[in-house]
Amino acid sequence: MGTVAFDTIETPFGKAEMVVGGACTYISWAASYFTHDIHLVSIVGEDFPKSELGKMEARGVNMDGLEVVPGGKSFFWEGRYHNNMNNRDTLVTDLNVLADFNPVLPPRARSAKYVMLGNLTPQIQADVLDQLDGSQKLIALDTMNFWMDIAMPDLKKVIARIDLLTINDEEARQLSGQHSLVNAAKVIHEMGPKYLVIKKGEHGALLFSPEDIFFAPALPLAEVFDPTGAGDTFAGGLMGYLAKTDDISMENMKRAIITGSAMASFCVEDFSLNKLQILTSDEINQRIQRFRKLIHFDLE
Amino acid sequence: MGTVAFDTIETPFGKAEMVVGGACTYISWAASYFTHDIHLVSIVGEDFPKSELGKMEARGVNMDGLEVVPGGKSFFWEGRYHNNMNNRDTLVTDLNVLADFNPVLPPRARSAKYVMLGNLTPQIQADVLDQLDGSQKLIALDTMNFWMDIAMPDLKKVIARIDLLTINDEEARQLSGQHSLVNAAKVIHEMGPKYLVIKKGEHGALLFSPEDIFFAPALPLAEVFDPTGAGDTFAGGLMGYLAKTDDISMENMKRAIITGSAMASFCVEDFSLNKLQILTSDEINQRIQRFRKLIHFDLE
Repeated sequence: MGTVAFDTIETPFGKAEMVVGGACTYISWAASYFTHDIHLVSIVGEDFPKSELGKMEARGVNMDGLEVVPGGKSFFWEGRYHNNMNNRDTLVTDLNVLADFNPVLPPRARSAKYVMLGNLTPQIQADVLDQLDGSQKLIALDTMNFWMDIAMPDLKKVIARIDLLTINDEEARQLSGQHSLVNAAKVIHEMGPKYLVIKKGEHGALLFSPEDIFFAPALPLAEVFDPTGAGDTFAGGLMGYLAKTDDISMENMKRAIITGSAMASFCVEDFSLNKLQILTSDEINQRIQRFRKLIHFDLE
Repeated sequence: MGTVAFDTIETPFGKAEMVVGGACTYISWAASYFTHDIHLVSIVGEDFPKSELGKMEARGVNMDGLEVVPGGKSFFWEGRYHNNMNNRDTLVTDLNVLADFNPVLPPRARSAKYVMLGNLTPQIQADVLDQLDGSQKLIALDTMNFWMDIAMPDLKKVIARIDLLTINDEEARQLSGQHSLVNAAKVIHEMGPKYLVIKKGEHGALLFSPEDIFFAPALPLAEVFDPTGAGDTFAGGLMGYLAKTDDISMENMKRAIITGSAMASFCVEDFSLNKLQILTSDEINQRIQRFRKLIHFDLE
């Protein structure tokens, strides 16, 4: 569940106008390399290209949970990245049909074993949880500082109901009131989630369980072309891998984080979904081996 | 070679006044856990405690290269760390005897196989190189943005003569004119050094050879008490490990980087050399195992 949208993106490498974006789009594409039983829950206007939806359906993404608003316009975001690619300015946010989004889960989606709640209002994320049948194996949630600023009580309520939280390091500090990420993780585990993933962009990601810490590096890349969607692609790869392997142990979670990191490393190499739509399993496996090699050392 | 000094340090956890510091001090202490054949080259005033020098001598640090200026005052630095510990303000820098430092290498130091040039003016670093007998196996150099701002031509000349450069990510970008660290490493390799270590503090360190990349994480710590000297301790552990193993292959360099990271993780747990002076080999080995566990994953 999340946004399906249009983006206009400017980076030091160029500009892409009105290209396909949205958290749910990136999550679904990344997950589709690992499972073909995906239920997308989102909303678009009539302006959203049917060909793009068709490409996703062809990869096993069921569209019964997609509301298409007649005459409506899809959510639109425009942003410009600074030279360092770590900061960006939002130039335009047109909610359009997203302003009236009331997610309705199709019957089969209610028993999905693995649920990913993309970044949206905590209230909408809670509405999705209310419709699940309680048989879920793992529920993951992504959020951001914006909701911590304006809706912290709602956010904490929904965080109490999930198993895996993905946020960045500054958000972990804001949510917990702790500067040290180790201490932040302790506070956040108390809030409910068994697993916490702290995304640090070019500095990699940390996975915390109450007993263990795992660190996944980011692949050093010659050029980061467009970071848009990297976090959602990471989450999609992670959840797709979990769904495929159906194992939520810490050891398998580590493999899932590496898989998500590999998918994210492809995402940033081109605008929009350009790279994510054309990958092969071989390329993904080779990328995962590069992660392995990057951190491998033998003790004498 | 580097500074032996007094520091006054304020962090959110407390204040330490006129404690022992200096790059050469941290480097020597960290290296002393791996080799007892160390030649220190530095300068202090008569105010520097003989007991501290004695503790280092007892660990195999030869003091023939230490100039003690009668009636002089030792180099003094005072700094205050911000709450995030990643930024600090320099409050006082009193060069004192350091203003007239002309390093003179004792005869045995001229044939040292492993040489570490701590952060100082590029001219002083070059003066040390001029005194070496040419039999060195690896020469490492640490520097900072300050010298890039005011003495770039001198710095580039000395960088051309060394084998391993240690700088942080922003300094790698400034030195190379490249934003991507992968591209920065290519430019810096062209300048001379075979190995480049990019220190990213709490985000770990990257080791680049012309053919390979290795990433060493930083250990997530509940509390970083005082980051002063962490980079020098990292360098000291790295060089000590290389001297002990006498192997400068990329595979051994990876172990050296992990060893340096482990030593740095101890350094930040207390003020000054408090932690670095009381370690055991067991503690160091256990810490290295924690690094291993932090990044270890099995591919199904």
